[in-house]
Amino acid sequence: MSSSQESNQLPPTTAIAPKTPLKATTEKWFEYSVKVQPHHTDYGGVVWHGTYLTWMETARGEYLESMGINFAELVKLGCDINVVETYLRYHKGLRLGDIALVKTRMIEMTGVRMHFDYRIESSDRQQVYVTGKITLVAVDRKKGKIMRQLPPAVKDILVKLL
Amino acid sequence: MSSSQESNQLPPTTAIAPKTPLKATTEKWFEYSVKVQPHHTDYGGVVWHGTYLTWMETARGEYLESMGINFAELVKLGCDINVVETYLRYHKGLRLGDIALVKTRMIEMTGVRMHFDYRIESSDRQQVYVTGKITLVAVDRKKGKIMRQLPPAVKDILVKLL
Amino acid sequence: MSSSQESNQLPPTTAIAPKTPLKATTEKWFEYSVKVQPHHTDYGGVVWHGTYLTWMETARGEYLESMGINFAELVKLGCDINVVETYLRYHKGLRLGDIALVKTRMIEMTGVRMHFDYRIESSDRQQVYVTGKITLVAVDRKKGKIMRQLPPAVKDILVKLL
Amino acid sequence: MSSSQESNQLPPTTAIAPKTPLKATTEKWFEYSVKVQPHHTDYGGVVWHGTYLTWMETARGEYLESMGINFAELVKLGCDINVVETYLRYHKGLRLGDIALVKTRMIEMTGVRMHFDYRIESSDRQQVYVTGKITLVAVDRKKGKIMRQLPPAVKDILVKLL
Repeated sequence: MSSSQESNQLPPTTAIAPKTPLKATTEKWFEYSVKVQPHHTDYGGVVWHGTYLTWMETARGEYLESMGINFAELVKLGCDINVVETYLRYHKGLRLGDIALVKTRMIEMTGVRMHFDYRIESSDRQQVYVTGKITLVAVDRKKGKIMRQLPPAVKDILVKLL
Repeated sequence: MSSSQESNQLPPTTAIAPKTPLKATTEKWFEYSVKVQPHHTDYGGVVWHGTYLTWMETARGEYLESMGINFAELVKLGCDINVVETYLRYHKGLRLGDIALVKTRMIEMTGVRMHFDYRIESSDRQQVYVTGKITLVAVDRKKGKIMRQLPPAVKDILVKLL
Repeated sequence: MSSSQESNQLPPTTAIAPKTPLKATTEKWFEYSVKVQPHHTDYGGVVWHGTYLTWMETARGEYLESMGINFAELVKLGCDINVVETYLRYHKGLRLGDIALVKTRMIEMTGVRMHFDYRIESSDRQQVYVTGKITLVAVDRKKGKIMRQLPPAVKDILVKLL
Repeated sequence: MSSSQESNQLPPTTAIAPKTPLKATTEKWFEYSVKVQPHHTDYGGVVWHGTYLTWMETARGEYLESMGINFAELVKLGCDINVVETYLRYHKGLRLGDIALVKTRMIEMTGVRMHFDYRIESSDRQQVYVTGKITLVAVDRKKGKIMRQLPPAVKDILVKLL
């Protein structure tokens, strides 16, 4: 996960908004529960490795919603939040009918860059299935470019969180 | 390829097969070409971030096939190859109808652990869309455990490559 | 939707279990609610037409569960329920963040063949997005063949329903 | 192609463009070949029933392309082609590594409504896996409504075909 320079389409946001990153020390996770469906699995009888990104996306949306940020509204207002980095480790596979807890929390914000942490666990929290980190960045939909700063309403909510 | 079915708590494979990793110095990439379809995209007009894992999986299968390793045959023989780690960086989004070159190569093998490198580029190779690393591990389907060593036929081919 | 003969792998179940079909007259729908996520949509800004099959699958599983039929358990016991026919009509597209009610009910059972009806509506029930019919058949997992009859426990529940 | 964005309550396109349907008598199929990948399958070891819609979409795009209609260009010009109806029959499941021939042809055109026929067969054409029909309609992207008539360039090509 060593960082490398982004392509010219994605000027490093730190150049745009060089700021002390805000780090969370909270232990609080947002939890979203999923039951493994046939379309989540593959021939191996367990969840296909790409499926988790759909669960993580849904959990992230619900997490933001729980803080008062409506993702679909944000998009309508011209601000999108794009995934720029994903790192996943697969510890154990989930089977058809299993219930998973998708746990997420924002751990850091650097300018318009948001870092989310993930843990997918069994419902009794005794088994870890997947861990991961996903980085997102706020994008101006009209310009197709990374925003200089988050919309104030969003920023206020997220800063408060961290 | 399913996500990992490793036995509980991920015994480091190096503990099972502690070996000097075989590293590739080759610059040779295997190339697989994809045209962006409607089902690859999302409301943003570009490829949804999880879609790339399907392209990478297909490219990997074709790459192995080009070396004489038939993945489906391997699975029938009881040896699966599970994804245990994915790391992707998204540089720029691809649009409907765009042609992408999905480039992959195996860069290292440590025991039964195989490390693949990825670059998704425009067909003229001037634009990088996605870069990534994916780690896979050979799994005994019957036991549901990481294999102690690769099936000899497979290993011979891969060692030759590196 | 005119019927045609099935391939020899799928001998018509009516030949196996010729029975008066059981028809439901009930108006009762099972309802399952979904929020449109980015991965459900395509470049057109609305839900991609294949996505609805994932929602319908999940709704069907929850519906069976609500009747006391645990689908994953059934599969473990060697009885799978395979989709043999789908018919969908797309009336209007759902957008990011929209809430859909996926309504389903079993309308008929002919031997081991189960017919489900679907309506996807807006949460205020004023707009119909998709209507459809899906037919499933019970399959013996070991033999890979259509079952002669449903497992008694399952049949009893379904017959009572109709 | 998104599912329908037709204006409310589906004004029958025949009301907009009442025309004698153009029917094809041709036996010519366009063929597109696919190898079954892990992400196409489910726990049952065969292709998940919704996956076929992705194959059919890709085959349809290649088919149009082969006639000189570039789908992505069409969309850029403001004309989308939305799926309004799908009917699929599943005869037999494909397994990991299997090669499928996705055969398609346009069989009829009624105003801006296009009817496609599908057959998914084994590469030796001895086994039929899936058959289906998909109806699409040309939509004005800006207005979000069904077009009164196809763009002339497109229409000329399709009429010639039938």
